Amino acid sequence: MKENPAQYALPHIQALAAYTPGKQPDTADWIKLNTNELTYPPSPRVAQAITAELHCLERYPSPISAALRSTIAKRHGLLPSQVIVGNGSDDVLNLLMRAFCGQNMSAGMLLPSYSLYPVLAAIQGQQISYIPFTSEMRLPVDACASSKANIFFLTAPNAPTGVFFPMEEIAAVASRINGILVIDEAYAEFAPSDCVPLLHKYRNVVITRTCSKTQGLAGLRVGWGMGDPDVIEILDRVRDSYNVNRLSQAGAKAALEDVAYYSDIIARIRTTRDSFAREVAQRGFYSYPSVANFILTRPTTRSGQYGPEQAQSLFDAFYERRILVRYLPGTALTDAFLRISIGTPEQMNTLLEVIDQWQTRA
Amino acid sequence: MKENPAQYALPHIQALAAYTPGKQPDTADWIKLNTNELTYPPSPRVAQAITAELHCLERYPSPISAALRSTIAKRHGLLPSQVIVGNGSDDVLNLLMRAFCGQNMSAGMLLPSYSLYPVLAAIQGQQISYIPFTSEMRLPVDACASSKANIFFLTAPNAPTGVFFPMEEIAAVASRINGILVIDEAYAEFAPSDCVPLLHKYRNVVITRTCSKTQGLAGLRVGWGMGDPDVIEILDRVRDSYNVNRLSQAGAKAALEDVAYYSDIIARIRTTRDSFAREVAQRGFYSYPSVANFILTRPTTRSGQYGPEQAQSLFDAFYERRILVRYLPGTALTDAFLRISIGTPEQMNTLLEVIDQWQTRA
Repeated sequence: MKENPAQYALPHIQALAAYTPGKQPDTADWIKLNTNELTYPPSPRVAQAITAELHCLERYPSPISAALRSTIAKRHGLLPSQVIVGNGSDDVLNLLMRAFCGQNMSAGMLLPSYSLYPVLAAIQGQQISYIPFTSEMRLPVDACASSKANIFFLTAPNAPTGVFFPMEEIAAVASRINGILVIDEAYAEFAPSDCVPLLHKYRNVVITRTCSKTQGLAGLRVGWGMGDPDVIEILDRVRDSYNVNRLSQAGAKAALEDVAYYSDIIARIRTTRDSFAREVAQRGFYSYPSVANFILTRPTTRSGQYGPEQAQSLFDAFYERRILVRYLPGTALTDAFLRISIGTPEQMNTLLEVIDQWQTRA
Repeated sequence: MKENPAQYALPHIQALAAYTPGKQPDTADWIKLNTNELTYPPSPRVAQAITAELHCLERYPSPISAALRSTIAKRHGLLPSQVIVGNGSDDVLNLLMRAFCGQNMSAGMLLPSYSLYPVLAAIQGQQISYIPFTSEMRLPVDACASSKANIFFLTAPNAPTGVFFPMEEIAAVASRINGILVIDEAYAEFAPSDCVPLLHKYRNVVITRTCSKTQGLAGLRVGWGMGDPDVIEILDRVRDSYNVNRLSQAGAKAALEDVAYYSDIIARIRTTRDSFAREVAQRGFYSYPSVANFILTRPTTRSGQYGPEQAQSLFDAFYERRILVRYLPGTALTDAFLRISIGTPEQMNTLLEVIDQWQTRA
């Protein structure tokens, strides 16, 4: 018998580095702009729907999230057989990786984008292959289309940059890539358009969505995937039978049906985002043009200096004022930047005050 | 490009047969005794705790289910580092399989027991190895202890039989097996004792539990694992960062803290179970001695006939009266039996009436 039972783990699991989620503070006295949550509360119908479900907690939920699947399908003009519901979109991403990446079948992604993908590939014992962005952050269509990956992950709009990719460019990848193309649309509802029309044309496309950002339901863990019924059927085989609990199914359904509430919130976030982008630009910060609910911006001193040191310094200045943003060191294209979720206008004004003080000192 | 995108799936996933969960009817007018849910509502504190959490759904939950881990650790006299919380215990079983079963590292189980294990192994591309019970359903200690499996799953009390295994026999397996021993204690709280003391002696033991049965929270999807901190750390790497939503964390914590409420319910279930077992015995049904919240019993006609045909016939008679129980054909040791969850005394009396009518006809 092995002395340390962890030594029974598969060799690649013993070597695995876990995904690092953003800090989730215990107390409510933070301005929390580090994980792109919605800064407004979700639709009041969510709490109503959850409360109405409290009488039957002793019963298993619908294994296939039947009612929620139908709502999602209707919303996007699809059939329920084209939809799978996950315990967060991370669940769907994980199912995709488990079904389509493994021995001799690799995964690919752009760099930088969502740092969960390489972890999910590593759990499958595979190294993901990276296609780097240049500093223009435009989609490298040819490189993606000729990727040897069996499954390729494309975040659109991209994170952590927030940049938009035209649908025609993504379509060009979909039509040429020899494998599954996952379009991770976690932030698509803040953008001017999405890639759902591609589902009618390319059977190898799977789109993932989450209720954590636009619907303000990060605490509920609901996401979904949309794709060809044959692909959805494969994912359903790998999925846990009861992967989404009763309350999350009911709450997400209520949120997705309250279109008017969220249209208003999306408009507010866009206005605040564009205004904040202008304000930091006036202070000499370069930012990528964001269509999401966050902005990747490069802290710059009055004398025009920027770099990892300045990014860390402004991060610390925010932190002192109990403002959490995200610093993502490690890749050269982002290590001089901070990713800041868009909060209320009042919150963003507080950030601007801190920036002004920091520029005075720095 | 492949014509059908499902053909991009890994070969063993293309060949996979999914787990079949029990039927979950849409309407409430069934006597539902097919998936071993609690027949009583959960503690009223659960709904209170969930309601108190509704104000912050836009925030991600604690990634490590911190408060709930502490509650569980305290409950069992362990450290939080010895506990992992899952989206149902199926989540923990899945993590165990992903970490400890894969190429050249196999999984093992007893037959019959929980039919999810072979599906989880198959997702890892592995065939599980079976150690069969004899009709006495006693634990085959030597066969388990000399299993070549890298991870071995032992359901205790067993399902679908409900039989109890003495802790000394399980300890004998733990001390001799060269691998991880998972003791799946989904039903342990209905039994006279559990295997938690083994955690202090055998580092290779992992115990899994669920809130779906005893705590009456099948709708919330919460389970947990307990084991060596080094094993828990491995599982945490493979776990989704936010695998348990806010409401389920809060609800499960409230339930586990309301010990008095559940002691009373457990006592009631045991009384009803033992009484139902006596009643069916008087009607000539053989049942395995169950310490769980269900009973595996063999429908027998007045003239003493039993077999798959009789089991299906009584299943149908129940179904006609909108009573759902579980028929598990496929293995010779159980295909003449029905697994019946223990409901209220009134519900069990209704079943006895149906049995009496069936015996008159059959």
